[in-house]
Amino acid sequence: MSTTETWISSLRYKGDHLLLLDQQQLPRHTVYINVTTIEQVWDCIKKLQVRGAPAIGIAAAFGIVLWAKANNSLPYDEFKSKLLQQKAYLAGSRPTAVNLFWALDRVTGSAEQARDTEEAVQLIEQEALFIQQEDEETCRKIGEYALTLLKNGDCLMTHCNAGGIATSRYGTALAPMYLAKEKGWDLSVYANETRPVFQGARLTAWELQQAGINVTLITDNMAAHTLKTKNIAAVIVGCDRVAANGDTANKIGTFGLALQAKALGIPFYVASPLSTIDLNTSTGDDIPIEERPAEEVTHFQGEPIAPEGVKVFNPAFDVTPHEYITAIITERGIASGNYKKQLANFFNS
Amino acid sequence: MSTTETWISSLRYKGDHLLLLDQQQLPRHTVYINVTTIEQVWDCIKKLQVRGAPAIGIAAAFGIVLWAKANNSLPYDEFKSKLLQQKAYLAGSRPTAVNLFWALDRVTGSAEQARDTEEAVQLIEQEALFIQQEDEETCRKIGEYALTLLKNGDCLMTHCNAGGIATSRYGTALAPMYLAKEKGWDLSVYANETRPVFQGARLTAWELQQAGINVTLITDNMAAHTLKTKNIAAVIVGCDRVAANGDTANKIGTFGLALQAKALGIPFYVASPLSTIDLNTSTGDDIPIEERPAEEVTHFQGEPIAPEGVKVFNPAFDVTPHEYITAIITERGIASGNYKKQLANFFNS
Repeated sequence: MSTTETWISSLRYKGDHLLLLDQQQLPRHTVYINVTTIEQVWDCIKKLQVRGAPAIGIAAAFGIVLWAKANNSLPYDEFKSKLLQQKAYLAGSRPTAVNLFWALDRVTGSAEQARDTEEAVQLIEQEALFIQQEDEETCRKIGEYALTLLKNGDCLMTHCNAGGIATSRYGTALAPMYLAKEKGWDLSVYANETRPVFQGARLTAWELQQAGINVTLITDNMAAHTLKTKNIAAVIVGCDRVAANGDTANKIGTFGLALQAKALGIPFYVASPLSTIDLNTSTGDDIPIEERPAEEVTHFQGEPIAPEGVKVFNPAFDVTPHEYITAIITERGIASGNYKKQLANFFNS
Repeated sequence: MSTTETWISSLRYKGDHLLLLDQQQLPRHTVYINVTTIEQVWDCIKKLQVRGAPAIGIAAAFGIVLWAKANNSLPYDEFKSKLLQQKAYLAGSRPTAVNLFWALDRVTGSAEQARDTEEAVQLIEQEALFIQQEDEETCRKIGEYALTLLKNGDCLMTHCNAGGIATSRYGTALAPMYLAKEKGWDLSVYANETRPVFQGARLTAWELQQAGINVTLITDNMAAHTLKTKNIAAVIVGCDRVAANGDTANKIGTFGLALQAKALGIPFYVASPLSTIDLNTSTGDDIPIEERPAEEVTHFQGEPIAPEGVKVFNPAFDVTPHEYITAIITERGIASGNYKKQLANFFNS
C-alpha cells in the first residue's frame, strides 16, 4: 500500500509503521511506501527504494524497531536471541555501506542493558529515533566544514546522490550546497547522472532543482571535458564506507572521477559522517564490492538497451585510494594527508 | 521506406539509391533505409542513423553521387556551382568528424578535371566507390598494425563504436579484434556502453557478440574499477579528428578514459585512418565540439530519466591531448612520441 505526500524526507517513523520514500519512483512520482514489517525494510533496501549509506542505516534501525514492537510479548531470552537473528538478516541486505552494520549494532546494543523485553523494545525505539535526529545535525556540521573549503561563486561537481534523501536531512556531499543557499551564496553544480541507476539524474538533479540551486546534468563520461572546460572548483562526493587509512568505497564511478580530478588539478573531497568510517576495515582492499544484476545495465524501464544475452559486469561501488582524496570532511572536522591518524583522532575527540 | 536484410554492412550503393543501415534501431532491428536523395543523407547523418567518422564520410560521398545523378542534365557551369552548394550543405550536417569534409573534398575534387556534366557525374561516382573500397583495406591494415602491439590472451577495453558498421568493414579500433579472431587468438573485450546514445551497448557489444568475440558490457563509469581489477592490457578507441600534433577528438568520454588509463599505467591507443588526421588543424583547441539536444541525456526512448526542465550540458565529443595517447595506429604505421613529425611523415610516405 502506498500513499502520496508533498513534503520530502527519506523516512518518517509513525510508531507502528514507517513511511519510506520510494526513491526508485523519483523524480516522476513522490510516493511513500507504508512499511510495517522488517521483511519490507529488507526488501526496500535490496531494491534501492531506500538508498544512501546514512538513510540505509536509519531504515535498518527502524526495521529492528518494527520487529521489536511486533514481538514485545516474547520471553526476554527468546527476544534477545531472535533479535540477533533479525540483525543478521537485515545486515545481509547490502554488503558495502557500513552504516547499515553500524546502525544495527547501535540499536541492538542499546537493548543490552535492558532488564526485560518491554524495556528492550523501548530502548531500541529510542536509539533509532536518536540515530535519525543525530544524522541531521551531523549532516549540517559536515556542510559547515565543507563551506570552509569553498567560496561564493564556486562551481562544483558531484556524483550519485549524497543528498537530503540519502540521509535524514541536508545530505553529506550536498549539505554545503543547501547551507550556501541559506547564506545567499551563488554556488552551481554539475551532477553526473550516475549509471546504471541514474541516482544523479533522478535524485540529485531533482533535489537541487527543487531547492532552487543551479544544477546542470551531464552523463558520467562528460566529467573530464566538464572539469577541464567549466572552471570546476572542486568535486565533492559522499561515501558508503571509509577504511581506517582513508580509502573510500562509494558509488561506481567515484574512483575514475577522482583519477580525472587529480590529473586536472581539481580538489576531490569526500563528505563522510563518522558512522561511515570503519576503523575495523584497514584498507580499501578489505571492503566487499556488491555486484548487482545485469538487467540494471542492459535494460531501462524494461526496455532493452543492449543485445540479448550479452555478458555484463555490474559492480555497484568502487574504491578510491586515499592518495586521490584531497580531504575527508566529517562532522568533527576535516582530515587531509595522514588519514589513518586523523580519522582515528576524530573518534577520540 | 525500409527493408530488412541479414548481411550487415553500414552502407550499400545500388546505383540509383543507397541502402543505409539504421544504426539507431540496432541492436533490436536490423533495418536498411532506402535513401534516394542528398537531403535524406543529410538527415541520416544528423540523426546518427549513420555514424562513425569513416562511415559518415562514405555516406556523404554517396550523397553527392545521388545528387549528381539526379542533376546530370544540368549545364556544366550550373552543375559545378550547384555541386559546391551541395558540398557545403552536407558539410553542415555534423561539425566534428573530419572525414566528412575529407570525403566531400575528394568527390567534388574528382570532378574538377571533367569536361562536361556527364563526365563529372561519372568521376564522382568512381571516387565514392573508391573511397568505400579503400576504407576496407585501410581498416585491415590498421588492424594488422594494432595486433603488433597486442598478444594472444589480452583483454582490451574500448569506448563507443569504432567497428565494422562505423566504417566500410572491420572498423578501426575493433579491427584488431576481428583479425585476432581470424588468427585464432583469444582476445577479450570490455565495451563501455557510451552514454548518452549507447553506441557501446547497442553497437559494439552487438557487433562483437555476432562475431563470436568475448565481450563484456560495462557502464562508462565502471572503467576505472575494471581497468584496475580485470587485468586490461590496453585501451583502444577510434577517433573523429586527429590534429597535426596528435590531439584527438573522439566520442565524449574518451578524454576521461585516457586520463584513467594513464593514471593506472595502461597503454591508450587511438586507431585512426589518415582520412581522420587533419594536418590543417594544429591542435585540439581548434576542433569544434558539437553539442547535441538535452533530450539525448534526459530521455530514453521517449521516457524521462531526469526531472522536467533540468539544465543539461551535452557535448558529443571531447579532445584527448596527445600526451595521454600512447600511440596512434594508422594504415601507414604506428606513431608515438613526436606526433607532429610522424603524422606529417605518413602523408609523405
